[in-house]
Amino acid sequence: MEKTFIGLDFGSDSVRALLVSASGEEIADAVCPYPRWQRGLYCDPSIAQYRQHPLDYLEAMEQVLREVLRHADPRSLAGIGVDTTGSTPCAVDAAGVPLALTPDFAEDPDAMFLLWKDHTAYPEAEEINAAARRAPIDYTRYEGGIYSAEWFWSKYLHILRHDERLRPACAGFVEHCDWITAELTGGPVKPSRCAAGHKAMWHPDWHGLPPDEFLTGIDPLLAGRRDQLYTETFTADTPAGTLSEKWAAKLGVSKDVVVAVGLFDCHAGAVGAGIRPGVLVKIIGTSTCDILVAPKPPFCVRGICGQVDGSVIPSLTGFEAGQSAFGDIYAWFRRFLGYAGDVPLAKLEEDARKTLPKDVFALDWMNGRRTPDADASLQGAIFGLTLGTTAPEVYRALVESTAFGARRINDRFREGGLEIREIRAAGGIAGKSPLVMQTCADVLDMPIAQVRSEQTCALGAAIFAAAASGVPFAEAMRNMASGTGSVYRPDPANRARCEALYRRYLDLAESVEKEHKSHVR
Amino acid sequence: MEKTFIGLDFGSDSVRALLVSASGEEIADAVCPYPRWQRGLYCDPSIAQYRQHPLDYLEAMEQVLREVLRHADPRSLAGIGVDTTGSTPCAVDAAGVPLALTPDFAEDPDAMFLLWKDHTAYPEAEEINAAARRAPIDYTRYEGGIYSAEWFWSKYLHILRHDERLRPACAGFVEHCDWITAELTGGPVKPSRCAAGHKAMWHPDWHGLPPDEFLTGIDPLLAGRRDQLYTETFTADTPAGTLSEKWAAKLGVSKDVVVAVGLFDCHAGAVGAGIRPGVLVKIIGTSTCDILVAPKPPFCVRGICGQVDGSVIPSLTGFEAGQSAFGDIYAWFRRFLGYAGDVPLAKLEEDARKTLPKDVFALDWMNGRRTPDADASLQGAIFGLTLGTTAPEVYRALVESTAFGARRINDRFREGGLEIREIRAAGGIAGKSPLVMQTCADVLDMPIAQVRSEQTCALGAAIFAAAASGVPFAEAMRNMASGTGSVYRPDPANRARCEALYRRYLDLAESVEKEHKSHVR
Repeated sequence: MEKTFIGLDFGSDSVRALLVSASGEEIADAVCPYPRWQRGLYCDPSIAQYRQHPLDYLEAMEQVLREVLRHADPRSLAGIGVDTTGSTPCAVDAAGVPLALTPDFAEDPDAMFLLWKDHTAYPEAEEINAAARRAPIDYTRYEGGIYSAEWFWSKYLHILRHDERLRPACAGFVEHCDWITAELTGGPVKPSRCAAGHKAMWHPDWHGLPPDEFLTGIDPLLAGRRDQLYTETFTADTPAGTLSEKWAAKLGVSKDVVVAVGLFDCHAGAVGAGIRPGVLVKIIGTSTCDILVAPKPPFCVRGICGQVDGSVIPSLTGFEAGQSAFGDIYAWFRRFLGYAGDVPLAKLEEDARKTLPKDVFALDWMNGRRTPDADASLQGAIFGLTLGTTAPEVYRALVESTAFGARRINDRFREGGLEIREIRAAGGIAGKSPLVMQTCADVLDMPIAQVRSEQTCALGAAIFAAAASGVPFAEAMRNMASGTGSVYRPDPANRARCEALYRRYLDLAESVEKEHKSHVR
Repeated sequence: MEKTFIGLDFGSDSVRALLVSASGEEIADAVCPYPRWQRGLYCDPSIAQYRQHPLDYLEAMEQVLREVLRHADPRSLAGIGVDTTGSTPCAVDAAGVPLALTPDFAEDPDAMFLLWKDHTAYPEAEEINAAARRAPIDYTRYEGGIYSAEWFWSKYLHILRHDERLRPACAGFVEHCDWITAELTGGPVKPSRCAAGHKAMWHPDWHGLPPDEFLTGIDPLLAGRRDQLYTETFTADTPAGTLSEKWAAKLGVSKDVVVAVGLFDCHAGAVGAGIRPGVLVKIIGTSTCDILVAPKPPFCVRGICGQVDGSVIPSLTGFEAGQSAFGDIYAWFRRFLGYAGDVPLAKLEEDARKTLPKDVFALDWMNGRRTPDADASLQGAIFGLTLGTTAPEVYRALVESTAFGARRINDRFREGGLEIREIRAAGGIAGKSPLVMQTCADVLDMPIAQVRSEQTCALGAAIFAAAASGVPFAEAMRNMASGTGSVYRPDPANRARCEALYRRYLDLAESVEKEHKSHVR
């Protein structure tokens, strides 16, 4: 009987399970939205508070696992791999249980997972950055040099500060991907290298997490918190353990099923998309995540979201960058026009395709900027408006602005000494919008191949499941990673125009950023 | 029998006649749109070509004159005053007849009036400015130091250059207001001081129009053109003559009816609004025209649209400034949203009133900038966009941007040494939008009184009709000018916010203008 593996992919709104055979056949998949999240509970978008209840994860996960297992002999299942969004951490008690699963904190948003896009910890991030600038060692060095409000320590400090009732009950802070694997094995947390290295300033140079003095210097509330966590971390081809009795019984599978150490969704996606040195994998959806791998370099790339040995391919360094809004910008513009009436995206895209904006020009910072040099406070702008400017023209300018944002990431990677020979795109936008993909190919001046699998992240998690259960990683990737489909090639006729516009984008970006800093800060 | 006067106000789309008694009673008014213009003939908005056929003026004028005269004893009519848009000139033959009224050129747009907002002469304006910078005397000095594509000599040169068939037939170039008075009197043109001084670089310092060497230096095509025109000019309280037999018969009135020398609409409007030193009159419609008067100063205000002795009140210097789009910006935004669906202006305004934009911020250059330092190539921009930005927020930011544009005009007037003690507003927007008027009052930090008459320009023309037919000007103004109605007072609670936002507007304006010049030029 051919072995099968499940990749579990916890996204922002739902969890997906993908059942894959050892030879790479995608046998079945299932999706389940998080029920409380769907009802808007525990969130307050006006202050960018986005919290998810752990029960949402457990209930949805059980459902999708049961669903895909109906499509195979349960005895064939050899491993489960897990990826999640991140940094999406949660306060836990001394037993590692998320506090929202204990009766006292069942309805307390601070006792739930803080979804990656939760920005309530903005002040804490500023303080961490200030401390990092003062410290003898720059602990943010491998995370691009700028610590984000979206990340582990910002959120941990925020919760400790703002919830005095919760503080004494909190005995640790756990990433979503680490908690899920511990939940499935019933064992202790086996910390993800990917999560720890990209979001928690974990690095062998300082023997793990940053030292207590550094953390205490930010706020005494952090005293001792480091030692409650971990020093060792693991790549996702490592087994976290095997299924607990509880979960084996729930699912009707063997207790010998291996659970792999977790990692973040886009890092798994890069593996699902067949990443290798020189291949940039872009996961393009509401925002983007851009991943490269390379042999361990003797340098740090500044202003990206981090470089971590083994965060993607276990034997290579993984580099992460991204745009904090991409498809979200197009969706915003439709919502904006929606004040007057509903416009189907297809119509907007079709009309935009026929309109070459002459002077209309946008900056894609409607959700701040992630790479290069993360700054969540930056805002979008539209220039070159005349009394004749139309909605499709602005839409097209927005599309171009997101492509310019993508170009800046490539430039930053290259300036940092990394090579990009090939680009593969996965994610919702990559499959949906030929205008966006063609514009990106023109602006990046490189062909962009669409990844064939529609579940690249879950597929990557399944590859790690195979590796953790004994298949050599390279073999698992060769057998199971997705191939590519259609390729968008840069149109040489657009080259000069794109180049000139990109120069203008850089100039406008610089002057707007300068003005913003002098007024908003 | 109390004497009556007619003010004829030729606007961009229609002509209005207002019949006023010597004591200031507005007896009747009539409006007639230009029939060919209404059908879009002779225009090409894609290149900003806006031409008006002289028959449009004649036919519409006859209709409105007949209409108002039905409301009074024709024998009571003592004078007619004329204001028009400007600079709106036309090529004429040796007899002063607009070429479009001759059979050979009846359908040639170059033989018609070039409406003020026609921008086809942009290259010619650039050349005139370059020549003015080289010349020993700056002939643009009293016109703000920057010559516009909308003005007399730019348009004259453009027509001569671009229509070789027309060139030999063209024996002069006449402003709309000058031609109408000559048409009504049947006599020679009696040139308007207002038109000549504000738009044709006429000034006593150089004994009239700029010398032939200067004009020939721009283009030999202009050789001799100065001497075909005029050296003397007249304020609008001067009689241009009396009604011709033809027009007296057409209208059934006496040939003794005096026709006053013409002037521009907003200058007439300032008189209709009761302007005096220290009172800024703002005519606020699709664009704005801002008028001040003062005793002849020993200085030039730079970057405005000119300062001309007698262009408004005959005994004072008139200063003109303006914004090249105001209501047009709101109309554009509705058109822009109209891609998705129709939004009533009232709804947009009501929703905007309830939304204080937090970071959304606009630059009001959607139709270039008129004052300060005219530059038609500048474009609008919107900053501070986030994924939560709504249409009413942007609308409100646009309203604020037009108020900031207005504030810059006040600043420039004051920096130039002029005093503003009081503001009166007339025109479509002034009467229609409380949100706009209140925002202007807050940003300008001065009360703004609404002018009661709804036909301020026509009323001003009627006042000049009275003055030209013998009533002392001051008496005519005292008896006939409009009073003010509701007053918008600055809200002290908004003062600090407006001040801070205005500083930001200045900074953004500076950086966008700088970037624009480095890229677009």
